[in-house]
Amino acid sequence: MQLINNKGITAPQGFLASGIHCGLKKNNLKLDLALIYSNVPATAAGIYTKNKVKGAPIYITKDHLSNKKAQAIIINSGNANTCNGEDGLAKAKKMTELQAKALKLKANDVLVASTGVIGIPLNIDAIKNGIPLLTERLSKDGYEDAATAIMTTDTYKKQLAFEFTIDDKKITIGAMAKGSGMIEPNMGTMLSFITTDLNISGEMLQEALKESTKISYNRVSVDGDTSTNDMVLVMANGLANNKKIQEKDSNYYLFLEVLNTLNITLAKMIAKDGEGASKLIECIVYNTKSLKDAEVLSKSVINSPLVKTAIFGSDANWGRILCALGYSGININPNKVDLSFKSSVGIIDVCKGGMGLSFDEVKAKEILLNDEITIYINMNTGQYSSTAWGCDLSYDYVKINGDYRS
Amino acid sequence: MQLINNKGITAPQGFLASGIHCGLKKNNLKLDLALIYSNVPATAAGIYTKNKVKGAPIYITKDHLSNKKAQAIIINSGNANTCNGEDGLAKAKKMTELQAKALKLKANDVLVASTGVIGIPLNIDAIKNGIPLLTERLSKDGYEDAATAIMTTDTYKKQLAFEFTIDDKKITIGAMAKGSGMIEPNMGTMLSFITTDLNISGEMLQEALKESTKISYNRVSVDGDTSTNDMVLVMANGLANNKKIQEKDSNYYLFLEVLNTLNITLAKMIAKDGEGASKLIECIVYNTKSLKDAEVLSKSVINSPLVKTAIFGSDANWGRILCALGYSGININPNKVDLSFKSSVGIIDVCKGGMGLSFDEVKAKEILLNDEITIYINMNTGQYSSTAWGCDLSYDYVKINGDYRS
Repeated sequence: MQLINNKGITAPQGFLASGIHCGLKKNNLKLDLALIYSNVPATAAGIYTKNKVKGAPIYITKDHLSNKKAQAIIINSGNANTCNGEDGLAKAKKMTELQAKALKLKANDVLVASTGVIGIPLNIDAIKNGIPLLTERLSKDGYEDAATAIMTTDTYKKQLAFEFTIDDKKITIGAMAKGSGMIEPNMGTMLSFITTDLNISGEMLQEALKESTKISYNRVSVDGDTSTNDMVLVMANGLANNKKIQEKDSNYYLFLEVLNTLNITLAKMIAKDGEGASKLIECIVYNTKSLKDAEVLSKSVINSPLVKTAIFGSDANWGRILCALGYSGININPNKVDLSFKSSVGIIDVCKGGMGLSFDEVKAKEILLNDEITIYINMNTGQYSSTAWGCDLSYDYVKINGDYRS
Repeated sequence: MQLINNKGITAPQGFLASGIHCGLKKNNLKLDLALIYSNVPATAAGIYTKNKVKGAPIYITKDHLSNKKAQAIIINSGNANTCNGEDGLAKAKKMTELQAKALKLKANDVLVASTGVIGIPLNIDAIKNGIPLLTERLSKDGYEDAATAIMTTDTYKKQLAFEFTIDDKKITIGAMAKGSGMIEPNMGTMLSFITTDLNISGEMLQEALKESTKISYNRVSVDGDTSTNDMVLVMANGLANNKKIQEKDSNYYLFLEVLNTLNITLAKMIAKDGEGASKLIECIVYNTKSLKDAEVLSKSVINSPLVKTAIFGSDANWGRILCALGYSGININPNKVDLSFKSSVGIIDVCKGGMGLSFDEVKAKEILLNDEITIYINMNTGQYSSTAWGCDLSYDYVKINGDYRS
């Protein structure tokens, strides 16, 4: 597996992309409409938000994916098209129809995703008027504009691509994502789009995406809020010409490993670029009685506002971590817990057997002043482990989410 | 039932209190040790944190309350005496022994509570040296000092007292509480102490406290973090000389109603004085399929960082509320939800049947600029309801919790 520098969704054979400003965002320098297109029909799969309140695009995309096929994805930022009732559903459908017409496809082959404010009618005319230019701009270089057009409060583009080999065939996989607030009905939502020229069945693609999402995007938390519009989509157009993956053989697991690396990398980029975040927090909980325990415990720590503010303040306040483990709902033994903080400048043990160690506060501060912090938590009660990613809670989170209309 | 202005835990017959500085807080003008004393043995009951990590005082107080009797409570701020292992337990026990000796009681008749930093050994000598003065200062006027001595990041004292009548006997009930962060291992924890001269059995007192806590303190959330040291204690010394309450008769329910009013009032004071809070948020979810649904939904809204920051910014961003209902885990029907915002200056409907209403944004802003905001959420699916209280999320929350050691 090899990283391809500075590439994204158009890295695999047969994929083109574009991004334009159509008028959904007020600032007319800001791109707000993106398109991903495969030259040939592709196998596709999707994972969607578990929020009971779902954006209109979720329903349309799910429906269009029932045949596990797709050839294009149109994505807008600036409006989530959520809580808009029948009008919202009609407009999400319309987006796929308009884009299909421009690409000479069936509406059913086009998927749709939206991110932005909830409850404001979608300006479908702006999208309609934008689609000709969006389609014309499709190119191999379009991945940069597409990755920009899906951004909201993100401070940088999130994309990457890998090459790997299956049966002597070079396979390429690329992706772009946006995050920022796990949910930000004003401007947010977590979206990720993956393209590959791998030849794989729809069932296996869906299975791999599901497995991979569990240990990547589902382990990220910016503020604990789950968006109404979260969506991860993958298209595999088969142009790499490998023997089709149709079961969980060694090639399937090879692909899954690459997919995991890709998704975990994007998940960490999303966490680090959380709204107002100044630091990435990685929380590794290990030696638990079950996988579920490790997952719940690591998420509980990552979501604690008091842990997040302590890390923001570069403060080795391990008591808050122990406290977050204690109220997680998992039946822990506090007297067995060991805690350490790590960053690129070193590692420091702060708690052993549930009690504080006398540690060098200057060294702890030095470690915690870094912008990527790992919290190691040894529960000493079993053999399972899990990692969660999050970010600190800063003044800017409050500013971004409290002040935007003022 | 009548409010007695400016009174607290010493309002009922036979209760005295005091508060001093013994040296646990660095600033020697800040009181850090409090005592509540009943002239006669009292029936007592307690409710404790559900956090698996518990402060040492929780274990000692629970043990001393196994006979449902107590005559004094000693409380310190400045150190939570948590995660201190055997040493912590021995010191919590020692506090009760030292205070018992000074009051000529058995250690078993003294309860103990602590709030402050986790994982730092408790300075028991400071407490030992403080106890003679603490005991000497016991008086009817001591309730002000006691209520001050239990404060941490609280910005004001929380205390009140009511009078009511049972069988022509005047009953008095008083209380003091502290809150601020639902958990703040540096300086926090939710504590509440209630005194009454009611004559009631230990079983009925425990039952009433349990019922009342469920719909008061358990419905408050500042940051979703549950402290290791939370405790609510009540002492009833019987000096009002009413016929002893020994079953759930009409007098029991009369007492329960007063206790509920007292505890809900304190709970709202705690929410409003949450760390960095500028506003009290009350969330009333009604017409749900079950009580549990209403409880979970109202808590989900109160805990959402995005709802909290929106309220901080006086922004009628109802999409975030719908979103928080959607990810609560309750199987809601988004298409039936009606939402309104209310404050002392008016009420405004913002969403009906899950869709946004076109509302007057100026009026909405005017309503939300108030410091007590009620969110009405009609689920239109049943007949149950619940209320939760919380506060907004401000720059100051981040400052208080992120910067204190810097």
